[in-house]
Order: sequence, then structure tokens, then C-alpha cells
Amino acid sequence: MLNLDFHASGRHFLQIPGPSPVPDRILRAMSLPTIDHRGPEFGALGRELLSKVRQVFKTEGPVVIYPASGTGAWEAALTNTLSPGDQVLMYETGHFATLWQKMARRLGLEPEFLSLPGDEGWRLGVQAEMIEARLKEDREHAIKAVCVVHNETSTGVTSDIAAVRRAIDAAGHPALLMVDTISGLASADYRHDEWGVDVTISGSQKGLMLPPGISFNAVSDKALSASRQAKLPKSFWAWDEIVEANKTGYWPYTPNTNLLYGLNEALDMLLGEGLDHVFARHQRWAAGVRTAVEAWGLEIQCRDPKVYSPVLTGVIMPEGVDADEVRRLIYERFDLSLGMGLGKAKGRMFRIGHLGDCNDLTLIATLGGCEAGMKLTGVPLKGSGVLAALEYFANHPLDTDR
Amino acid sequence: MLNLDFHASGRHFLQIPGPSPVPDRILRAMSLPTIDHRGPEFGALGRELLSKVRQVFKTEGPVVIYPASGTGAWEAALTNTLSPGDQVLMYETGHFATLWQKMARRLGLEPEFLSLPGDEGWRLGVQAEMIEARLKEDREHAIKAVCVVHNETSTGVTSDIAAVRRAIDAAGHPALLMVDTISGLASADYRHDEWGVDVTISGSQKGLMLPPGISFNAVSDKALSASRQAKLPKSFWAWDEIVEANKTGYWPYTPNTNLLYGLNEALDMLLGEGLDHVFARHQRWAAGVRTAVEAWGLEIQCRDPKVYSPVLTGVIMPEGVDADEVRRLIYERFDLSLGMGLGKAKGRMFRIGHLGDCNDLTLIATLGGCEAGMKLTGVPLKGSGVLAALEYFANHPLDTDR
Amino acid sequence: MLNLDFHASGRHFLQIPGPSPVPDRILRAMSLPTIDHRGPEFGALGRELLSKVRQVFKTEGPVVIYPASGTGAWEAALTNTLSPGDQVLMYETGHFATLWQKMARRLGLEPEFLSLPGDEGWRLGVQAEMIEARLKEDREHAIKAVCVVHNETSTGVTSDIAAVRRAIDAAGHPALLMVDTISGLASADYRHDEWGVDVTISGSQKGLMLPPGISFNAVSDKALSASRQAKLPKSFWAWDEIVEANKTGYWPYTPNTNLLYGLNEALDMLLGEGLDHVFARHQRWAAGVRTAVEAWGLEIQCRDPKVYSPVLTGVIMPEGVDADEVRRLIYERFDLSLGMGLGKAKGRMFRIGHLGDCNDLTLIATLGGCEAGMKLTGVPLKGSGVLAALEYFANHPLDTDR
Amino acid sequence: MLNLDFHASGRHFLQIPGPSPVPDRILRAMSLPTIDHRGPEFGALGRELLSKVRQVFKTEGPVVIYPASGTGAWEAALTNTLSPGDQVLMYETGHFATLWQKMARRLGLEPEFLSLPGDEGWRLGVQAEMIEARLKEDREHAIKAVCVVHNETSTGVTSDIAAVRRAIDAAGHPALLMVDTISGLASADYRHDEWGVDVTISGSQKGLMLPPGISFNAVSDKALSASRQAKLPKSFWAWDEIVEANKTGYWPYTPNTNLLYGLNEALDMLLGEGLDHVFARHQRWAAGVRTAVEAWGLEIQCRDPKVYSPVLTGVIMPEGVDADEVRRLIYERFDLSLGMGLGKAKGRMFRIGHLGDCNDLTLIATLGGCEAGMKLTGVPLKGSGVLAALEYFANHPLDTDR
Repeated sequence: MLNLDFHASGRHFLQIPGPSPVPDRILRAMSLPTIDHRGPEFGALGRELLSKVRQVFKTEGPVVIYPASGTGAWEAALTNTLSPGDQVLMYETGHFATLWQKMARRLGLEPEFLSLPGDEGWRLGVQAEMIEARLKEDREHAIKAVCVVHNETSTGVTSDIAAVRRAIDAAGHPALLMVDTISGLASADYRHDEWGVDVTISGSQKGLMLPPGISFNAVSDKALSASRQAKLPKSFWAWDEIVEANKTGYWPYTPNTNLLYGLNEALDMLLGEGLDHVFARHQRWAAGVRTAVEAWGLEIQCRDPKVYSPVLTGVIMPEGVDADEVRRLIYERFDLSLGMGLGKAKGRMFRIGHLGDCNDLTLIATLGGCEAGMKLTGVPLKGSGVLAALEYFANHPLDTDR
Repeated sequence: MLNLDFHASGRHFLQIPGPSPVPDRILRAMSLPTIDHRGPEFGALGRELLSKVRQVFKTEGPVVIYPASGTGAWEAALTNTLSPGDQVLMYETGHFATLWQKMARRLGLEPEFLSLPGDEGWRLGVQAEMIEARLKEDREHAIKAVCVVHNETSTGVTSDIAAVRRAIDAAGHPALLMVDTISGLASADYRHDEWGVDVTISGSQKGLMLPPGISFNAVSDKALSASRQAKLPKSFWAWDEIVEANKTGYWPYTPNTNLLYGLNEALDMLLGEGLDHVFARHQRWAAGVRTAVEAWGLEIQCRDPKVYSPVLTGVIMPEGVDADEVRRLIYERFDLSLGMGLGKAKGRMFRIGHLGDCNDLTLIATLGGCEAGMKLTGVPLKGSGVLAALEYFANHPLDTDR
Repeated sequence: MLNLDFHASGRHFLQIPGPSPVPDRILRAMSLPTIDHRGPEFGALGRELLSKVRQVFKTEGPVVIYPASGTGAWEAALTNTLSPGDQVLMYETGHFATLWQKMARRLGLEPEFLSLPGDEGWRLGVQAEMIEARLKEDREHAIKAVCVVHNETSTGVTSDIAAVRRAIDAAGHPALLMVDTISGLASADYRHDEWGVDVTISGSQKGLMLPPGISFNAVSDKALSASRQAKLPKSFWAWDEIVEANKTGYWPYTPNTNLLYGLNEALDMLLGEGLDHVFARHQRWAAGVRTAVEAWGLEIQCRDPKVYSPVLTGVIMPEGVDADEVRRLIYERFDLSLGMGLGKAKGRMFRIGHLGDCNDLTLIATLGGCEAGMKLTGVPLKGSGVLAALEYFANHPLDTDR
Repeated sequence: MLNLDFHASGRHFLQIPGPSPVPDRILRAMSLPTIDHRGPEFGALGRELLSKVRQVFKTEGPVVIYPASGTGAWEAALTNTLSPGDQVLMYETGHFATLWQKMARRLGLEPEFLSLPGDEGWRLGVQAEMIEARLKEDREHAIKAVCVVHNETSTGVTSDIAAVRRAIDAAGHPALLMVDTISGLASADYRHDEWGVDVTISGSQKGLMLPPGISFNAVSDKALSASRQAKLPKSFWAWDEIVEANKTGYWPYTPNTNLLYGLNEALDMLLGEGLDHVFARHQRWAAGVRTAVEAWGLEIQCRDPKVYSPVLTGVIMPEGVDADEVRRLIYERFDLSLGMGLGKAKGRMFRIGHLGDCNDLTLIATLGGCEAGMKLTGVPLKGSGVLAALEYFANHPLDTDR
């Protein structure tokens, strides 16, 4: 039988930037018996879910739910709206933006990848003026879509999506705006309709606090129109049949019922708490964690305080330190999982997730594990991050605390 | 909060041909905390899973596990091996074969759909000689793949895949053999390697007794070779990166961890019992259910006893009876879900699933609900199916009963 | 690790008259993390529970909840109200009445056990006139308490408690009235206040649909007064400290928190459905099961139709049949647990529980298993009970069906 | 429905000295369907449980398992072995010893309560020489039992039981030795047979990591002999029928099945890890926590380092500080439950539990919450306890770490 108790005692601290720790309520909901996906209860559940999920995306349009993980929703956004050889303008914020760009190329699109020199792009948000400039050059409107990542999970930078919208508008360009907020949704403020996003991509295993296995496309009218002309082959990801079937609360093929139970529970928890309260919680946790990193005298991956991520914080190791060795020791000695450095940042940083089923003391434990692990591996620290964060949390109660 | 207790009391009888009733052990396993999909425990779990799952497909080659439902695995089989405009030979066994053929067309392939006249094809297994004849005609080998459904969930017919293999070989044709055993695997005998199948497609929510959300491609060397030339765009479904990452027990993108917990538990249950015992159980249940249908004096959808499905039985309603009305009443009065007639069979039949977490008395309850429901809606019955099945089960103990 | 999957497949049919099948909602609630029994959430939960549980007993007085199984609540009723050597009038309705009487003797009381000749008492309800006659004889009021069982689990007889109350009143006798409704509460109509009961004893594992481990004393003012004089030693069972602590929602010693979670869920389910609907459900099931027994041509243990139990039905085997052999075969072949004959009825009957998480088809399955098992062991049957019950359920929908 | 998510997010830190945090494995096991307590699977489970539980008590004699919480097992020990008016020698180690003594009096025994002056007894272990001296005085052997608490949960003192045994032997006195190790068992070293204990009392909700609701009496031959003469009324608690029924793995009345599932899982976890490793874990945690208290400059309730408890640590607040106010703020602001001061220590101390499903970072979180809470309520601290403990844990890996 499955035995996940790899350690002699105690609950593992899962502080990677997703999959995030899943609340017990959601795990229990997911373990209820599977029902007939064509029966009347399912339709009722489907209609309720689809209505609630739109509130989280802040859209009145359709939100397509896939029984697949987030990478699939990237593919869905591209294949539904684009045709082979189409040009897309993408922006390098980090590892996940890079992966998405590779996917676009693999699918037969022509991505152009706006990047800052060196690793600068990985430490700042999307530079909207670069997008505006490039779109203005594109007088024939060969560029069909602008693709950006909202919360870049590999770096801890949360870009200003409204600014990207304004850039496109300022260029008077008809390109679709596609935004990946897989790790931003339900942790960081996000507004599909207000920000004029055409396709929002998200997933279940971050701010929604579910296990992986569900992903989303929120879709504007403009994107729906584009999907009627787009020529990339698509079937599983095709919006048309799903949006049609969703009208009665069903799906054209078998949905993943038990994860939808969990999604329903998650939506009740988030909407019951209030999204503003949820966002404030994450901002406060992020501030506390950054206070710790500053106390250690270490550098944060994100260099622009305006775009610090409320979801995760990237901590850069001093020259000569192998971040993965630090992580490995912390994992083995303290039963704590941290996010590794990805792509260009491999071995140079670790990432602390502050999302999911979490509270102040979870983060104190996490920072404690980091601090002890860095000391044991000889990372020079200026001061105690745990104490700094503890003081921060003590002195900054959440205004709307309940 | 989620409330699935739509009825005043009692456990719902989910006797559709999948999603099948999920055993408690699996539901409990699925509700354990999500772990880091890049951590060492995950790798150990992945390696163990990939080894055990191959035993169920009876293959020594790779089995690709997707964090997506079964329809996706159909798409994966096609996009990994084929190029736009490729001809594929498909065979109409029923609704799901038809849907797969539609998908092939939608993806830009040229499916040719072998069919028997009228609804004959829906009542018999794949006619291997028709495939052989057609392949012999194809002297230039324009046909790149032969696609058949092993256990057609819409009809209750389990085709002879070895015969299809022999037909291809007799024609000396190099086409790939792709087989959908989404609802056959782990309930009906299936042998990927021995039968020379190139791609086997399956899913989690039938014989594997899991909720939907996981699907599979078992892949032959020949299929892997084909995938290196195939030109349909693919990224999420692409085998190459998954097979590579699987070598160490990981996935290139986030797998759906909690369903994998359930899969691990399911594999332990099935392999612990022994696949031969599992198959014998299903054959015996199917025989009991058919005994009931005969006692009622009703017709079984499958007309060839050699290919009766061990997984489900389609029951044809007499002329003038709306099968969906019968199902609806049974559902409302007896808390029992039956499968509806799909496609050409809509309104003309219902389907009884005999798979998943099931035993003799579950089926007696099911047949009782069917019998009472048919009486209440005025379906003329020759005799009592419940009693016939009860006698069958009583007099035919499972030889290897434990 | 614990493995309860003793059979190759399928859910066990637990149709003993308790512990009853526990609904999934309750099992999930019970598996939530244990909380501090002295913290504020616990107090809130305690107050809510204590208020809701009174509605099920139909009392406005205190209901004492013990972290102990039902047998303990028998002891609690006696030790709280009585003194060594006290006379108590008990009535032999069956095995559990007999065990309670033995307990009284073991605790140093002087039980007088009213019985009908032979096994007559085990087939009829409490004969209130016998109690009245005996109390009238007791001019000095030496008898301190009258103890009867409401729903005798060993026989399937549900006595008329209001009649016992009238008998005591008619005798003008001050004895306390103590009633065991361990297996009656929340399945059969019960009214602590209206019927003038002084101590009602109940437990969690029957109509409340919980696992065993919680038991109850509902207590009248008169019983509370008696407890202040009673001299049997008591500490764990003592009402005084519990009733006092309960005022704020707490207990004087550690309560069994997780079972209380389950109790809370059960109370929500029962009160949400409405007790009258709950009672009607059980009456209808009992009628269906009796129809089956009549069709078999077998005798029901309860001989007085006015007191047939809605909770269970005792089925008498013909002379020469070992009921336990029949039960054993049914268990092994059909994964169905039935209640054994207890005490005087050992080997002569089996008992079918129709309570807990149950519905029509659960009972059809149960009766199917009984019928097949009796045939296989050679019990002569007049006709088919399954068919009779199926017809009964089909033709007698629950008026208030939802 | 039950909602325990009283806080907006995150898992509650339950760091009271029991009920302890229950591991997920145990919660899942407890939520499996209830089975027939008279069926063959139950017997097999019972026999396995009874064999494994003896290993934890380190006895070859019977261990009686009650479907009741720990207070009941105190009563069981007394009522099985003693007669009304019997003298028992008890020793005041703290609040729980005091409660047990009150119970003895309430049950009609004559407890003599050995105490040190002032609150000295609450800060030291049992003074075996006082017991020896008193027993030597008792030449007529009027004293029938010596009752001591092994791990006093109200103070964090773990007395030397072997020394008590030697004291009784040195006095040549035949009194029974009864030991409460409700909070010691399975966390602190305990040896029923080797230490010559006659009755060991324990419960489920501490080192066994279960919810409350199960309790134990481990019983020597001498205690069994005594029970045959003892005259206190008893029925529910009576050993004789339970020990007899246990021979085949059953109980004379309904056991609390689902908690027994949990117990089985707990025993597998503890015996699988090895008791010595379990004890070493707790000793190390306790040392880390004491290091923190010393760094704060606060006093530990236990004044004798030889008897520091591995299970919990009592932290004394400076004069003028209301410990309950500190606890309340910590609870509200940091979602952390600490044990209150009980009895004589009310308002003067709080207790930190370091048992159950726990690891180093759980304790760092706990100490962080304590430190921040004490600062916020103005408790003067000499230094940082969190940092001291973090350093301790970092520099003292568990030798046998896995």
C-alpha cells in the first residue's frame, strides 16, 4: 500500500511554489465517491462550479475547465486561436515564459521572444514599452498574439498586466493578449475582463490549493471569434464543444470528477473568505519572507519592489554556493521542500512558496529550516531571518483579520 | 460545502460502464497530502508506478501516463505518430469508435471508416477480414495506421485484437496498429506486446477503478520510430520528453500527483489479486447479467457470444419504449445510475456496467432496480432476471474464489 | 497497514442491526484533525452538538454524552440513580434486556425480571399491565426503577413506551422509568419528554449512523434529583460534573473529539431530512423486508404486528436448520453480514438490519443474498422474497419522497 | 456541515500535551467502513491488535482495551482490584494525580495522598523513599495499592517507576502498584513487566497519536488475582469477561471499531519505527524545547533534570503575568494551541507538547509562536528561544536518523 511517511514523524513542509499544500477540507471533498458525469447531480455541480470559477477570474465570459494539468492549458490557448506559422510576441520573464515559447515553436508557430540582456529579464517584470514599440513596428499586423506570464513561478516576479494591455492599445494593434497566471490566480490580484485579457491560462495546484490535474482557459469574445478561424489542429482542447456543453453544466468528454469536487470546495473557501482578504494574506506573507531574506543579507531574485510576487520569493545564494546542495540538506534534515532554481537560475537560487494551506507559523518553520540549513552548509548570513520575520508578523497583523 | 447526498439515505449504485465505483482504499490513498513532484519520494513513486503499470498492459515497452482524461490519450496516439493528411483505417464498432474517427478528421487526418450496413457493426466485433481486404488493396501503403476499439463501451462488444494483428500481417502491411482499450484494460484480457499493438490507449476510470483524470499510451518501438517522423503539431502529448523524464521516475511537467497515489493503490490491488482472477470475476459477472437479460426476454446489444463484453452489457428495449425514460425512473426511484444509449443507440438501450468496486450482490441490486423500473414503465418482461442471475451466481462460484 | 479488503472486490454489505453502515459524509467528518478540547472552537462545537442532540431525543433536559460505548450508558443510568441493594423492575424482551438485568445484579442491585413463559417474551413487546400489576403490589415503593428496552435488537420488537408510562402512573408509583433505545433512537419514533421517561439510554452505532464509541443518557429532573441521593459509587459516569461542564460546551474529562465530529454531521443529516421522514423510511423498509419473509414462508420473530421493529427483522429458521451455518455461507459467498441469533435464539434465527446508510436496493441485495444462501443450505422456501420485496418497494413509494 | 476551518488559512498547530496531532495515515485508517464486530475479519484484527499492543506496554500479560477515554481506565484499575473502604497510597505529582485521588475518594476508597510541601511535589518526580517509609509503617498491610503517575501531564515530570517498585519491595509490602502512563506510553520509555507494575493505565490520544476514545489497563497476574476478590461494583470495566472474550479476538460488548483501525495503524507505525527510536526522538525534541526556555530566561516547571518529561515542557511565567492571556493571544494571532496551567498552576504556566505527529520545524513554529506571543504581551525575555532551539536541532541530529 501507498506509504508517504518517508520520515519517522511529522508532517512534511511543502513550501515549493506549487503544488501548494492542500487544505484538509479539499482532500476530504476529493475523496467522496465518483458520480455519473451524465447524471442530474453532475449537471447541478457543473453549473455551480462554472459560475463560481468565473468570479475568481473576474470575468463574465466562459471559463473552460480542462481535465488536464496546466501545461495543457498553454497548448489550448495557442491551438484554439492560432494557425500554423502565425507570429506571436512573447516576453522572457523566466523559465516558464521560456517553456511556453518553446511550446509555441514546437506547435509550428513563430514566436518572437522579447528579452532583456543577460538575466535582467528574469529579475524584472514585463517591460510593456518594449511590447508597445514592437507592435508599433508591426504595421501589417503579422503578430497575432502577445503572450506574457503574470506571476513568473521561476523568479517570483508578478508583472503588471494592465500595463501590457495599455501598451497594445497604445500601439493600436489587434493582437490577442494571452496571459499565464497559473501560479498567480487566487493568490495575486487578477482581473480578466477589466484588464482586457483575451485568454487567461491557469491551473489548479497553486492559489486554488488543489492537487494538479485541472487547468483553465478564460476566454474573451475576441478570442472566441479568433478560434473560429484558427487552423492549428485541435480536438481535446477545442473550446467550441466544451463551451456548448457547459451551458447545461456538462462536458463533451469525461471530466475529472473528484478534482472538480475539490475545486468546488476550494471556490467555497476562497469566495467565502473574500478574494481581497486572500490577496492581502499573501502580500503580508511575502513581506514577512522578504524581511527575512534582507535580515540574512541575501539578495531577492526580483529586483523591482513594484512587482514582488505575493506567491513566492526567490532567494539568491552567494557566489560559490550550490543552492541545490543547500536545498537537499534542508530537505533531509528538516523535512522541508523548497523550490529549485530553474533554467538559467539552476543551482543559484532557491524559491520559497508562500501560498496554499499556510499561515504565519508555517512560514516561521520554513524560514527556520532555511536558516539552519544555510548555516549547516556554510552560507554566510548577516543576521537571523526567522527573528526578523517573526517580528514582522507580530507587528503587522492583517487588518481584516478574522 | 460539497454535498453529494442528493438522496435521503444510502449509497448510490453507480452501474454505468465507467467511471466505475472507486474502492475506499483508492479514495483514501488519493486524499493523502500532495508532495513535491520534483522531490526524491516522487521519483521513487514514479519508478514503482511505471514498472507496475507495464504489467497491466502486458508490455515491456514504455507506458506514457498523461495527467489528462482518456479523450486526450486518443489525441496523443494520433498526433505522436501521424502527419497532416495521413490516411488511417478505422472501424465502426460503435459510438466511441465514431468519436475517435471524428477526432482524426478534426486533427487533419484522412480517416476511412469501415462499417457494416445499418447498425450491424454496432452489434458485432471488428471484422478482421474487412481490414485485411482493405489493406491488401492499399499497395502503396498510403494507410499509416489501423485504429480499432477493443472494448466498445457504447455496445458491450469486446473485439478480437489478435485477429486484427493477424489480418495486418496477412496483408503484409506496415500500418501501425492502434487500439483503444479505455474500458477494457484491467477488466478484460489484454496483451500489448503479444498482440503486436503499436499504441494502446487507456484511461483510469474503468477497470483501474480510479476517478477519471489519468490516461495512457503504451507504445511499441515501431510507434516510437514513427513518432520521430510524424508532423502533426504536438507538445503536451509528445512522447519523447515524457519517456526521457520517466527514466528517473519524473515527468517533464506537473503530473497529477493525487491521482497517481490512487493509481499506485489500484495497481497493488489488481496485481495482488492477480490479473487472471480479475478477468474471471468480470466474465462471471457478465454471464450472470446476460442470464438476467435472457430471463427478461430482452435482447442483448452484442449479437456474437464470442465477443460479449465482460465489462458491460447493453440491453435493448422493445420497440416503442424510450430507454431514457426507463433509466430516469430507475434513477429517481432506486438511486441507480445506468449507462444511456449513445449515438445511433440513443433511446433504444441502456447499459449495465459490471466493473469497478462491485460484487454479486451489487449486481443483484442493480438487476433488481432494472427489473422494478422496467415493470413500472410498462416494459413487458418474460420472467424475472433478478432470480435468474441470483441462481446463476449461486450455482457458479468463482473457481479461484478466495 | 490496515487492509479491510478481505474480499477480492466490492463493498461489504453490513446488514446487521448495528453497527450500521456509516455514510461517507460522516466517515469524512470523523477524519478531520483532532482539536484542543479546551479551546474556543471546541466549546462552540459542544454547545451546538448538545442543542441538536436534544432534538433527536425530543427533550428539553440535559443529554449526557459519554466517550464510551452503549453498555457504559446502561451502567451510567443505574449508578447515577440507584443505591446498593435497590430493587429495580426489569422486563425480559430479549437478549439485551437480559444483559442489562445481569449488569444490574453485578452492580449490586436487586433486579426483578418480569418474563412471559418460554420464549413468549422474546416475541412480543413489553406487557405494560404486568408492570402495572407488579407496581400496585409494591405498596412500600421498594422498587426504585422500572427498566425496559424500547427496540430490542435481539428480536426486532419495538415496545410501546407510552403504555409503560401509563402503567406506572396508573399504579401511582414513584419509580423512575429508564428506557434503553440504543437501537431505536433516530430510526424509530421516540419521545423522552412526552413519554415521561426519566433516563433514556442510547448509543451512536445504530440510527445515528456513527461507528460505536459514543453513548447517551437523556435525563429528567426527577432522575437528576435521584442522582443526588444515589449511593452506588460512580465517577466516570457521574452526571453532575458533566452537566455542569456542558453548560459552556465542554466536558470534565477528554471527550472523543473525532466521533463528536461524526455526531455533528449525523445530526445535521437527520435533522436536515426531518425525523418524521427518517421514521417513515425505516417503517417502509421494514414492511418490505417482512413481505419478503412472508413470501419465503418463514416466521418473523416478532409475533405482534403492532410492535414490529422498523430497525431490524428477525427471521426464524425451520426446525433442524442451523441459522449460523446459513449466515456463514451467506457471508462467505455473498459478502453480506447478518445478525446472529443471540442468547435463547442462538442458532435459531438470523436478523436483518434495515438501518443506517441504506436504500431500497441495498435491501434487495441483502434479501437476494439471504434467499440464495438459504437455497444453497437447503432451507425450504415457499416463494421468492426478493421479488416480493421488489414489488413492495416498487408499489409503495415513500409519500414524502424527495 | 462541520467546518473546522476557523482560521482563514493554514493548519492549526496543536501543541498541547494531548490530544496530540494525529498523523494522516491514522485519520485515513479510521475513516474506513465499520465492520461487523462479531465477524471473522474483526476477530483477526482483534488478535493482531492485542498482540501488538502488548509490545508497546512491554508486557506478556493481558492488555484490556476499553471503548472509553482515559479517565475511565483510571476507574477500571480501581474498581477491578479494590473493595469499598480500601486504603490506597497515592502520590501528588500534579493535577492528574490529584484528580485520580479525588476519583478514588468518590468511588468509596480511602486514598492517602503523599505530598511535598507547597508546590514542591509538582516540580519533582515521585519521592520513592516517602512511599517506602509509609509502607514500612503499614505493618498490617491495610494499604492495598500504591498509585503513581508516570508522566504527569500537568507539569512535565516523568517519575522513576522502577524506583517506586524498589521502594515497595524494600518495604516488603504486598500492595499492588498501579501506574498512570496515559501521556507517557509510546513517547517515554515504559516497561510494565520489568518494572513489576500490576496495573498500567493508558489512553489513545497522546503517544499513540490517536484521537481520544480508547483506553487501556495492562494487568499483572497479581492484579488479576486481586480482581477476583475485589468488591467495588463493576460491570462495564470488569476485566474478567473482556480478557476471556479477547482470547479469540473479540469483546463482550461493542468495541469502538473505527478507533481500533486507527490503533492498528498507530501500532504499525510505532513498532515499524522501533520504540527506541521513538523514545530518542522525544528526548531530543524535549532537549531542544528546554534549550529555548533557558534562552528566554524562563523557568521550567520540572526542577529535577533527571525527570524532565520527553513529552511536554511546562514554562513558568514571571510573577504578574497571566499565562492564560499569553496563551489566548498566541492562539488568536498564531493559530497555535498550548496547554494551560491546571489546578495549582492555573494562570502561572503554559505547557508545550512535543509529541504526536511532530518534527523539528513543527517545534520551531511552536517556539516562534510562543516567543512572538510573549513579546506582544510584554513578557520580558532574555534572548531568543527559537534561535537557541534551531541551533540545538541543527547541531544534534538524531543518531539513528533515517
